[in-house]
Amino acid sequence: MNYYERNRDAFLKGLMEFLRIPSISTLPENKPDIQRAAAFVAAELRGAGMQQVEIIEGQGHPLVYGEWTGAPGKPTLLMYGHYDVQPPDPLEEWKSPPFEPTLRGDDLFARGSSDDKGQTYILIKAVEGLLKTEGRLPVNVKFLIEGEEEVGGEHIEAYVSSKPPRLKADAAVICDTEMFAPGLPTLCVGLRGIVYLELDVRGADHDLHSGSYGGAAPNPFQAVAEILCALKDREGHILIPGFYDRVRPPSAKEREAWARLPFDEEEYKRKEVGVTELVGEPEIPLFERLWARPTLEVHGIRGGFTGEGAKTVIPARAVAKISMRLVPDQRPEEVLEQFTRAVTAACPRGVTAEVRNIHGAAASLVDTESPFIKAAAEALSESFGKETVYIRSGGSIPIVGLFDRFLGIPSVLMGFGLPDDNLHAPNEKFHLPNFYRGIEAVAKYLEVLGR
Amino acid sequence: MNYYERNRDAFLKGLMEFLRIPSISTLPENKPDIQRAAAFVAAELRGAGMQQVEIIEGQGHPLVYGEWTGAPGKPTLLMYGHYDVQPPDPLEEWKSPPFEPTLRGDDLFARGSSDDKGQTYILIKAVEGLLKTEGRLPVNVKFLIEGEEEVGGEHIEAYVSSKPPRLKADAAVICDTEMFAPGLPTLCVGLRGIVYLELDVRGADHDLHSGSYGGAAPNPFQAVAEILCALKDREGHILIPGFYDRVRPPSAKEREAWARLPFDEEEYKRKEVGVTELVGEPEIPLFERLWARPTLEVHGIRGGFTGEGAKTVIPARAVAKISMRLVPDQRPEEVLEQFTRAVTAACPRGVTAEVRNIHGAAASLVDTESPFIKAAAEALSESFGKETVYIRSGGSIPIVGLFDRFLGIPSVLMGFGLPDDNLHAPNEKFHLPNFYRGIEAVAKYLEVLGR
Repeated sequence: MNYYERNRDAFLKGLMEFLRIPSISTLPENKPDIQRAAAFVAAELRGAGMQQVEIIEGQGHPLVYGEWTGAPGKPTLLMYGHYDVQPPDPLEEWKSPPFEPTLRGDDLFARGSSDDKGQTYILIKAVEGLLKTEGRLPVNVKFLIEGEEEVGGEHIEAYVSSKPPRLKADAAVICDTEMFAPGLPTLCVGLRGIVYLELDVRGADHDLHSGSYGGAAPNPFQAVAEILCALKDREGHILIPGFYDRVRPPSAKEREAWARLPFDEEEYKRKEVGVTELVGEPEIPLFERLWARPTLEVHGIRGGFTGEGAKTVIPARAVAKISMRLVPDQRPEEVLEQFTRAVTAACPRGVTAEVRNIHGAAASLVDTESPFIKAAAEALSESFGKETVYIRSGGSIPIVGLFDRFLGIPSVLMGFGLPDDNLHAPNEKFHLPNFYRGIEAVAKYLEVLGR
Repeated sequence: MNYYERNRDAFLKGLMEFLRIPSISTLPENKPDIQRAAAFVAAELRGAGMQQVEIIEGQGHPLVYGEWTGAPGKPTLLMYGHYDVQPPDPLEEWKSPPFEPTLRGDDLFARGSSDDKGQTYILIKAVEGLLKTEGRLPVNVKFLIEGEEEVGGEHIEAYVSSKPPRLKADAAVICDTEMFAPGLPTLCVGLRGIVYLELDVRGADHDLHSGSYGGAAPNPFQAVAEILCALKDREGHILIPGFYDRVRPPSAKEREAWARLPFDEEEYKRKEVGVTELVGEPEIPLFERLWARPTLEVHGIRGGFTGEGAKTVIPARAVAKISMRLVPDQRPEEVLEQFTRAVTAACPRGVTAEVRNIHGAAASLVDTESPFIKAAAEALSESFGKETVYIRSGGSIPIVGLFDRFLGIPSVLMGFGLPDDNLHAPNEKFHLPNFYRGIEAVAKYLEVLGR
């Protein structure tokens, strides 16, 4: 038995201790728990043999840093994870309390088990094993663990954008994503970008009675409906002029690889998505719709009357929350302009429409020929005994953009979660075989890179 | 000087006392004020010389009844008003406190001054003058004053629908509407009906992350937008099959009369409605759009994320509050069926749409040849020195339907409010010349009817 096999019980015990800290980043009353969780991470890094370990205070929750730089001439990896978690509500739907980690079969149930304490712990334990057994690492490693991932806090952005010399690295390793299927080693090599905005439509300068004025007064909610229908057709095609111009289709090789992924669409549809029918552009295959096609979604519409009963108001204003997911090579600023022009063209008479940008980020795509990706694929394949698959994700991971923009490094998204891990939901879990194998895979990755 | 001219100061003083009672029907903490207001009305009726005055308790706030039936062989009128008022919020926008009646120029500012304490008081003082000076009334008169008009309480419906013998009458007089313009005596002879409903659209069985699932998951908000656009075009034409089949156009005479109404469309648009442009069916004149054409309005859409910032959710559900105003001879049940069928036809794939009825009421139209209307027109013309105009209202007044349905009597809508009285808004006012002239006009009405 190697170090990793011998210490499984200790790893599990340590992770459970980590999970018992309710480090909910959005609630002020959990601020002491955030501090405890940061201290826990710092202690673990020190215990693993990392040096220069420091809790970096700043605006918002602390960052935790640690490094081992005893391999001159070898690459430097920046390892990222987060110690904060989502709130556990609704509490009554948990089968065991969210902060009392509970084993059922091969799964460990607790808030944060998968997202992201379990995965952060994988990174720490991988390094620990190498340092305890070899006394050194095959490459240089730096850790940057944050406590505001679930609230989009700005501490890490402020810190990374200041380009501190100690963050200098050749690639980042982000352990906060999913495997495509249980036991299937997975590298995520593409993320969609986003433009999130508010569409603010105003009609009369005050709310009007729909009896007295219905038939002559403009209705901002109807106007939002008309604008939405002008922006996207019933088949899911986005009608904004120029919107698809820069969209780079996936390569034939990528499409073929996606078509080969083990996948039960019926089960995905019924169990994971929970719908009777999957929709979207009918001529585009599912994974391409999710990973390589842009979207336009409305998240909600503020204003008017939404309570019980009947209030007969023509609202003065409707504010729609809308986002577009972007793919390579769309540019957020350009898409925002295209959207705004299309809204102006679609805006019905009697109302004004204003578009307010909330935030934007470009899509990212990692070169699968990068040595950091190739080494990761090799390490994962060895550890899991299967060929690593390359997928993309439809979501956006802001830290990837920050590392790219300010540190000029690619991110290796090596995740060990599973699609049914209930992230951000009751009964979050982590599949323990992935936990143990993930630790060994990360250690293997450092070895392969160090060769 | 007649009784009415001599007693103007006393009328004003009495009204101000009535207005000082904050009888807000929707707030539990104002329950004692509701009781005080009901007692005030009862005392005023007794003071005016009415008999059998009684505060009728029941579910909700009390009704106040009184009668004078000393004119056998003459018609009997049922006079309706309400002593409850809307909440005064937002308080900071009032120039003088809402329950401290304040004179500025010819206007008395206070919550309830126009809606409806001032107008209820007109009915009482009209009767008082005749009884004090003549010792009798020219017709039989009954009062039914309620305290739940602003909350749609069910006490009066329960009472009227039980058809108590003492409510037997030949016509109702409702003093709760507006004059078309200052100094222009006005009878409202038509009201629109309504169907109010919820459109409940469901997609996935849980909220979804728009990054992970956008491109394949149905979005109930987009579906609501598509359904709304399928139900009404950008010009305001309602596209529901059969919807206009029963619509009875106004007579040529009515249209001509409406075209002659003194009206500044520019001022109406800018000041009253507060829009840059009036919209709706372009080929239909404004008053017809407001009074004689059906509408479809969305009041708000519940669900999803509407807060500050950016939450990337594809909501599982969107519930739109929608109402249609109906005109003669549309039938609420039939319209609801037509709407439901049209929604089913327009519903996009991947979602389900359910229509839930909230309430409905047919439109009403009073025969302008009715002797009660003709007498009212004559009395108003005499009192105001101008020919009475007939208008309709785009709104619905439920009590008119109740009186029609359960008592089998028409309602004479003789109102003395003005379009700029700020009903349900800060700085509600009553134009005192209308108050004084209204009292005389109602007295004159009883005289004309008694001839």
